[in-house]
Amino acid sequence: MATYLLSAICLSLLLSAAIGQRSPQLREARQCRLQRLTAGQPSQRIESEGGFIELWDENQDQFQCVGVAALRATLRPNSLHLPSFQPSPRLVYIERGEGLLGITFPGCAETYHSQQSERTREEGQEEERQREGRRGRDQHQKVHRIRRGDILAIPAGAVHWCFNDGKEELIAIVFNDVNNQANQLDQRNRAFYLAGGLQRKEQHGEQARQSFQNVFRGFDAELLAEALYVPSDIVRKMQQEDDRGLIVNVREGLRVIRPDEQGEGERGRGPGEFANGFEETFCTMKVRTNIENRREADIYSRQAGRLNIANEHKLPILRSLDISAERGNLFPNALFTPHWNINAHTVIYVIRGDAQVQVVGANGQTVLNNRVNEGELFVIPQYFASTIEAGKNGFEWVSIKTTSSPMKSPLAGYTSVFRAMPLDVITNSYQVSPSEAQNLKLNRGGQTYLLSPGRRSQ
Amino acid sequence: MATYLLSAICLSLLLSAAIGQRSPQLREARQCRLQRLTAGQPSQRIESEGGFIELWDENQDQFQCVGVAALRATLRPNSLHLPSFQPSPRLVYIERGEGLLGITFPGCAETYHSQQSERTREEGQEEERQREGRRGRDQHQKVHRIRRGDILAIPAGAVHWCFNDGKEELIAIVFNDVNNQANQLDQRNRAFYLAGGLQRKEQHGEQARQSFQNVFRGFDAELLAEALYVPSDIVRKMQQEDDRGLIVNVREGLRVIRPDEQGEGERGRGPGEFANGFEETFCTMKVRTNIENRREADIYSRQAGRLNIANEHKLPILRSLDISAERGNLFPNALFTPHWNINAHTVIYVIRGDAQVQVVGANGQTVLNNRVNEGELFVIPQYFASTIEAGKNGFEWVSIKTTSSPMKSPLAGYTSVFRAMPLDVITNSYQVSPSEAQNLKLNRGGQTYLLSPGRRSQ
Amino acid sequence: MATYLLSAICLSLLLSAAIGQRSPQLREARQCRLQRLTAGQPSQRIESEGGFIELWDENQDQFQCVGVAALRATLRPNSLHLPSFQPSPRLVYIERGEGLLGITFPGCAETYHSQQSERTREEGQEEERQREGRRGRDQHQKVHRIRRGDILAIPAGAVHWCFNDGKEELIAIVFNDVNNQANQLDQRNRAFYLAGGLQRKEQHGEQARQSFQNVFRGFDAELLAEALYVPSDIVRKMQQEDDRGLIVNVREGLRVIRPDEQGEGERGRGPGEFANGFEETFCTMKVRTNIENRREADIYSRQAGRLNIANEHKLPILRSLDISAERGNLFPNALFTPHWNINAHTVIYVIRGDAQVQVVGANGQTVLNNRVNEGELFVIPQYFASTIEAGKNGFEWVSIKTTSSPMKSPLAGYTSVFRAMPLDVITNSYQVSPSEAQNLKLNRGGQTYLLSPGRRSQ
Repeated sequence: MATYLLSAICLSLLLSAAIGQRSPQLREARQCRLQRLTAGQPSQRIESEGGFIELWDENQDQFQCVGVAALRATLRPNSLHLPSFQPSPRLVYIERGEGLLGITFPGCAETYHSQQSERTREEGQEEERQREGRRGRDQHQKVHRIRRGDILAIPAGAVHWCFNDGKEELIAIVFNDVNNQANQLDQRNRAFYLAGGLQRKEQHGEQARQSFQNVFRGFDAELLAEALYVPSDIVRKMQQEDDRGLIVNVREGLRVIRPDEQGEGERGRGPGEFANGFEETFCTMKVRTNIENRREADIYSRQAGRLNIANEHKLPILRSLDISAERGNLFPNALFTPHWNINAHTVIYVIRGDAQVQVVGANGQTVLNNRVNEGELFVIPQYFASTIEAGKNGFEWVSIKTTSSPMKSPLAGYTSVFRAMPLDVITNSYQVSPSEAQNLKLNRGGQTYLLSPGRRSQ
Repeated sequence: MATYLLSAICLSLLLSAAIGQRSPQLREARQCRLQRLTAGQPSQRIESEGGFIELWDENQDQFQCVGVAALRATLRPNSLHLPSFQPSPRLVYIERGEGLLGITFPGCAETYHSQQSERTREEGQEEERQREGRRGRDQHQKVHRIRRGDILAIPAGAVHWCFNDGKEELIAIVFNDVNNQANQLDQRNRAFYLAGGLQRKEQHGEQARQSFQNVFRGFDAELLAEALYVPSDIVRKMQQEDDRGLIVNVREGLRVIRPDEQGEGERGRGPGEFANGFEETFCTMKVRTNIENRREADIYSRQAGRLNIANEHKLPILRSLDISAERGNLFPNALFTPHWNINAHTVIYVIRGDAQVQVVGANGQTVLNNRVNEGELFVIPQYFASTIEAGKNGFEWVSIKTTSSPMKSPLAGYTSVFRAMPLDVITNSYQVSPSEAQNLKLNRGGQTYLLSPGRRSQ
Repeated sequence: MATYLLSAICLSLLLSAAIGQRSPQLREARQCRLQRLTAGQPSQRIESEGGFIELWDENQDQFQCVGVAALRATLRPNSLHLPSFQPSPRLVYIERGEGLLGITFPGCAETYHSQQSERTREEGQEEERQREGRRGRDQHQKVHRIRRGDILAIPAGAVHWCFNDGKEELIAIVFNDVNNQANQLDQRNRAFYLAGGLQRKEQHGEQARQSFQNVFRGFDAELLAEALYVPSDIVRKMQQEDDRGLIVNVREGLRVIRPDEQGEGERGRGPGEFANGFEETFCTMKVRTNIENRREADIYSRQAGRLNIANEHKLPILRSLDISAERGNLFPNALFTPHWNINAHTVIYVIRGDAQVQVVGANGQTVLNNRVNEGELFVIPQYFASTIEAGKNGFEWVSIKTTSSPMKSPLAGYTSVFRAMPLDVITNSYQVSPSEAQNLKLNRGGQTYLLSPGRRSQ
């Protein structure tokens, strides 16, 4: 029954696929006459002082078709991914490590204040007083603690930064939905950095250099100094090319104001100084959810694995971004039901293990029939039928869908199309006997999406 | 007054054309620099065992402009159109015959159950018991009775099948809204068949073969057998190429569970075994309305004819599909007012009779000035002004519009632009006298959309 | 606080950029790889009897990128811009003069009636009676008084006309949002005239002639005469090519029914004869707002200037058109904060004065660094960072945005991204000292969007 409920929630999308009221999902349809899909590793790497960014080649036909550009960012401990924004919304999955994320919303109040009586986690009172002498008190917008297994939703045009304050590398898988309607520019992967950027004379390809640009360097220093009302040598520091790149080392640790994490939780949030009612609506919207927790799996099979879904119902901001994510775990030799996605393209990143993946394209040909391995990424376009069989070590993945209410139509299992059809339609369609048709309808009848290992592997 | 009301409902669309809340109608604008439109018969025919499908050439500029692909399906008695789905929503008009339609919604419960105490229409209790012995009891999703004059709304990605259980041919006019936002693939007419399909070595054009594909044949039989947990010879039957095509004969009759049609109507529906509340919302959404009934005409003129409209207000599922239909009947020599469509393209199929049609294009040139005849199809792009004059046997048509709340702006009649303008604007615009301007405003003042025969034909 | 409130309202857009519920803003993304923007005067002029229309070249890359076609219409006193409609919504700013605007909504009642007891402004009772003898009584839809500083919102497909009844020229700046989703035709600037039009043999470029077409001339005169039920010589007058063009002289004055303007205001509106409830909703929707009033400025700085914004909250019809406008006034040497637009392209028309404008493109290069002058137009694509410094005579402009809820992200001022970031993020990003970072955060802290003149100009 829970299964029905879940699927039925998804169903709403089928009927409202086109209703803006829910999620308009209005994307420019692209050329999707794909003869072949491939799973692969990133093809380009951008080194920075504090880590590196690896890019999948967005010019491949398969990424052009689905309109998603993917990258993997690795931040070493104590390094800062510089503030930037993108022309399209992005979903981020934290594959490893932990850190801090700041997203700034223009017009929202700075709700995190350092006051005499408040302490940041890492500072003693004495030390703080000294520092305040040096840098004054601070106030800024909310900073989020992020951890392995988190999905982060970042709206188009919103400046954000990320700091690794953990002991191990922070690895983030980033999906940019370049074909999203929020993007009125051309549909390329771009990033606008408020600091840093790639050096002009460097070895990076022309494309990378054009995609990761500093927005300040193009301005006249004098004009900018006037606008900011600061001496122009500060502006020149802001515009300076250096070789730190996009991710920089932070030598003394990054101090931000945060509620005491050991503390009383929600009570830690002080009242905004300039409360206007909006900080209780948009300004405090949740941008983060963890989809790693096995006890909160949306679909669970003791024999086959589990699925955690982050859609607009679980993380409402996704409704406005019109994207969603799925975290899956298949046990060794288990299968993901043959199915097609009704209202979205899918991009899948392999977190662990391997699997045999088959995808059948719009022209009826097999467009993918490969083993996919850890660290690889592949796409499954809308309506393309696919199935996944985990390898002998199991298969774990995270995927995004280009809709906020994804819906799939399975060919096997409790919610399969066969169960929904009269027996005689099946017997006549396939010229099989009634009992064979019953087998098609019922043999996987107790399982949903995730299927236990079949005969072959037993 | 009723006229005003009707038009005013449509008006809401003018003001909300762009509001997703109502119907976002976000389509990729295409090249519409048409020099000439043509009305024509289908240009391709795909034969199957139990009937045939005729396709209009979607590559013509005029169909590319409006983004609609049309076809006519003919099912002979006792034949089944095999289960398939499309990447875009479709509206179907039943031109002739009757039959059964099954649409499967993944996640909805199987609400039609055969039980000891229930009987299907065609079976006696004795016979049923025998059959149950042979094939077990069945349960499946709702099956719809369809009849001449029905409009059927089929969401993108939803598997459906159709069976002709009548005595005559079942003829359906099918409009695929390939430019619809639900379709994130490229904007081609496609169909994904769960059974059947076109044979690879056959005489069909390359395009037809690529457009009507079997989704199972691309899968590895062993893998699929495992997923479905059936012997692989069943899967091989499912994948088998045979020459039955897309529509197959059903030899012993197709038995499906249906409430006794002579019976008590709504009471016949048994309680769902797995009720979860959703079967009362999406799962039971109406997909069918009849627009043939002359007593329910939306616009009626004793002298000129009638119009039946199926828009989002009458068939709410259309709101999500963002398409609508119109069924018209012009009496001999009557006219359809010169007008343009404000928020949609129009595709018109001639059911009976003939008419003289004039269309003026965006460049001010006459792009169509022809007699159109029974069985022909033609398009009128958004904003193109057009007028229709029925021939001496009258003119009947069905049309679809690429919006769920279509709105037209007439040049003559009760709701014409002239009536809405001050007299002096007309006299100065055309350098006509006040009384001539009054004629323009009032001579057709008592008629709406459908105009009685003019002087010429009297 | 008011500042926060205003910005926070805008913020809603950031989060709902993609929600159809608010404004879907679904546009086809275009090629925006602009190397250079230019500010310029119109490049083409179309003369008519009663005035002229000047067009900016819509084929320039910059206009193609933002999908807006702009023109300036000048009506001499006592001249009428003939009734026409466009395939896309338009915003009009009245730069000078006053006049009357009629927009006809098909299906809305004619709510302005001349009756014995009602008088139009310009007519005495005696005179009126004579005229009624000559032309009968009239009734028509609402006519709007328009004045300098008005923003007018005109839906796609709605016929409208404009009459200059003032003593000076009426100058209107017109922005056609050709990339708007209401337009299902190709994305060109077009106008369909119900009267007038450009002569075929004239000197106008091919493009202009194709863009300003008469919809009647393409029809067969006999057929049209029958449809309108008027003698065919009236139709021939309607179709006649003459050399009056698109704007014509009105010799005896244009008489329209209007409430006595000195009168009782709202009470002047008579009850509709055919009231159906809709005239209280859509039919009476406000299409006009004045954004010139300095006392109603949304943002005001005694040192820097003011901003008046016309968005969907102030003029609700804009929600359906998905466009909005801004009227700005910078005092001499004041600055508009460096910022980028989060959810829209911007097109700016210079009303008075001049300014130095810098725009940095998506590739990090300066794409515009010029002085812009009165009467010039320029564009700033979405996400491109820009700043404006008024010249020594100040700078006044009107701009439109391709969204109904525009939102900007400023780099300086009360709502800047720097204020929202922790101090340490700034120090580490730019390698500046804490006190320099505090300067960046706070030096313009008391100002919003509009910045007082900097040091240079003091």
